[in-house]
Amino acid sequence: LAVGYCQLPELLPVPGLRLGTTRAGVRYQDRRDLVIMELAAGARVAAVFTRNAFCAAPVVVARDHLARISPRYLLVNTGNANAGTGAQGEADARRCCAALAELGGCRSEQVLPFSTGVIGEPLPVKVIVEGLPAALASLSEQGWSEAAQGIMTTDTLPKGVSRVLELDGQRITVTGIAKGAGMIRPDMATMLAYVATDAPLAQPLLDRCLRSAVERSFNRITVDGDTSTNDACLLVATGEAGIPEIGETGSAYQALCGVVTEVCERLAQLLVRDAEGATKFVTVEVSQGRDAAECLQVAYTLGHSPLVKTALFASDPNWGRILAAVGRAGLPDLDLAGVEIHLNEVCIVRGGARAADYTEAAGQAAMNQDEICIRIALGRGGARERIWTCDLSHEYVRINAEYRS
Amino acid sequence: LAVGYCQLPELLPVPGLRLGTTRAGVRYQDRRDLVIMELAAGARVAAVFTRNAFCAAPVVVARDHLARISPRYLLVNTGNANAGTGAQGEADARRCCAALAELGGCRSEQVLPFSTGVIGEPLPVKVIVEGLPAALASLSEQGWSEAAQGIMTTDTLPKGVSRVLELDGQRITVTGIAKGAGMIRPDMATMLAYVATDAPLAQPLLDRCLRSAVERSFNRITVDGDTSTNDACLLVATGEAGIPEIGETGSAYQALCGVVTEVCERLAQLLVRDAEGATKFVTVEVSQGRDAAECLQVAYTLGHSPLVKTALFASDPNWGRILAAVGRAGLPDLDLAGVEIHLNEVCIVRGGARAADYTEAAGQAAMNQDEICIRIALGRGGARERIWTCDLSHEYVRINAEYRS
Repeated sequence: LAVGYCQLPELLPVPGLRLGTTRAGVRYQDRRDLVIMELAAGARVAAVFTRNAFCAAPVVVARDHLARISPRYLLVNTGNANAGTGAQGEADARRCCAALAELGGCRSEQVLPFSTGVIGEPLPVKVIVEGLPAALASLSEQGWSEAAQGIMTTDTLPKGVSRVLELDGQRITVTGIAKGAGMIRPDMATMLAYVATDAPLAQPLLDRCLRSAVERSFNRITVDGDTSTNDACLLVATGEAGIPEIGETGSAYQALCGVVTEVCERLAQLLVRDAEGATKFVTVEVSQGRDAAECLQVAYTLGHSPLVKTALFASDPNWGRILAAVGRAGLPDLDLAGVEIHLNEVCIVRGGARAADYTEAAGQAAMNQDEICIRIALGRGGARERIWTCDLSHEYVRINAEYRS
Repeated sequence: LAVGYCQLPELLPVPGLRLGTTRAGVRYQDRRDLVIMELAAGARVAAVFTRNAFCAAPVVVARDHLARISPRYLLVNTGNANAGTGAQGEADARRCCAALAELGGCRSEQVLPFSTGVIGEPLPVKVIVEGLPAALASLSEQGWSEAAQGIMTTDTLPKGVSRVLELDGQRITVTGIAKGAGMIRPDMATMLAYVATDAPLAQPLLDRCLRSAVERSFNRITVDGDTSTNDACLLVATGEAGIPEIGETGSAYQALCGVVTEVCERLAQLLVRDAEGATKFVTVEVSQGRDAAECLQVAYTLGHSPLVKTALFASDPNWGRILAAVGRAGLPDLDLAGVEIHLNEVCIVRGGARAADYTEAAGQAAMNQDEICIRIALGRGGARERIWTCDLSHEYVRINAEYRS
């Protein structure tokens, strides 16, 4: 189960966005596996996609459609990632878009397809197309919770969050949902996130806001260092809030972008909390670096180290492993004498060796927590970064070794 | 147990090098844990050490001594890595060197110290010093096998290999031993390798030969991507073979360096075969790259991917995970349509998707082997590289989660 209390909170509707969910039977029967999001005319969409060169057919098609015209529908299926399916996969994704466009009365390019699930199997187009009417019939601004369930694959719980802010005396909503339980599932293509607001945001600012929020959230988590073939994150601005368009990077933009970032951070944390086999939610904070890049280099070296991650799983305050990971992160001229490391509030390393006042009991008490912050001060500058990660458990190996059997 | 049949073969003596081993009781009683290697006058030594910025006290001292004068003794203890021990650790390492120098009648700087074992505990200098006379008393050119056992920590078996070649009508021997069962042990500081030949090799060529051999062997393996604080690899040329000194990079150098590389490759493979929890010995061959660097980038992305490694553990011919790892390796403009992937002789991916003639049965048969070669042709150049790695098993997590308990 996920680390920490993560029950789905009330998800607030975003005027101008309706969501419909149904059980189409893509891979399993009796499971919500098809979600349609309908965008009001005039809504704007920003998107970021996986950087994996082996990207899935729906990613190729969604990128193509997005470059042509404003979207009216997002179509998500679980159970099948339509990845590793070559030219047939692209044709299949386009057939699904065309079918929804016909029912919805728009152009085929106004539908963006998203698929998540098993890699390498042909997409069951007929099953998806047959599910469309039921999904359309259930469209509602109240449909967020069901959609959060409808995009789940092996997630143990639906993930979503809402925030409100006030702009121009008007209440603005930001609601987001996400799915994914490893950076890439065994044969699964993983992370999808949809965030929407009713604030009217000019397209360049929408793109900028999404990139900035993603950089601080989904690009700051790691479970196993693997990157899915299907990752996508969308930000929709319906513009229905009845305030003037935000076209400049003034205080309204800053406030809105801050809340969007907060929503993305929460969703990113939920992915890590529900990661495969995770028993610990771990924040790695690296400060006093020369620049952000070297702080991240150290943070990810820890976040990807099997030895650090197994020590976390064992609740072992193993400062030698942490210090060794810092040492091999590849920082030029790193003077370990200037490095300080804390586990939560306990100083474990100072001056390149175990802190003089460190006691195993204090380290053990910190490590016994479910939520652990590893704080590393590099002692050579003013930059600071943090990432979220989890431990490496027997359950991770079991899930990933047994998934296909 | 190690993958494949790895019993220690007969290790041939190298004239000019004697080895002595004893049970000093550094950490455990009744275990060979102290090894002395005595080099004949005139022997030359080349060495490479860990690149981890957090390097252990003996590494600091050995580097310092090596820069000053020709070594006469190598002193190795197991049970304690003398790492993370600060200034006291360096002083302790120097005290051990001084004690051996006094008994051996040489200068303190002519002793190189090596320690492997638990990180962060003070070195038991007294125990080591008291063990020196017994180790010296057992010095013998026949001492290789006992030394191979004497440098073991959690290795399940001693590791060594001998090769001979003929130069100038003279039989030349190259013998090497190594220890290490993860790239870094939990609290252990891991890899040590000692290779010796009786060939007379000029110092610049000796250095060059070692760097070249290490680059193709110990720098081509990965278990978990971690780098120990104590890694060291030495090449000794005693020069006792009675042939003229090899001072140029002609055919004699080429032949000798080829055999040294072969010895290092075998030792490197033995480390992987005996890696923590390993059930598979995996070769990753990447060909048709633009340059060696990008071939290695792809190979290590696979070798470090927990998803690929758990699939190997499960004997799951999971081509999606392998292709996704290739895709995220960060190669610019990689066209997956040109990529071909084989598991042993079975083609699993062609043109960015599952090969048309692939059958699950054929893939399964390849994956069921203990020794698996993943061959990736990138289809964009003439460079080629290969690394050796292993799978990620429950046993790996168990060992690394439970080591300190």
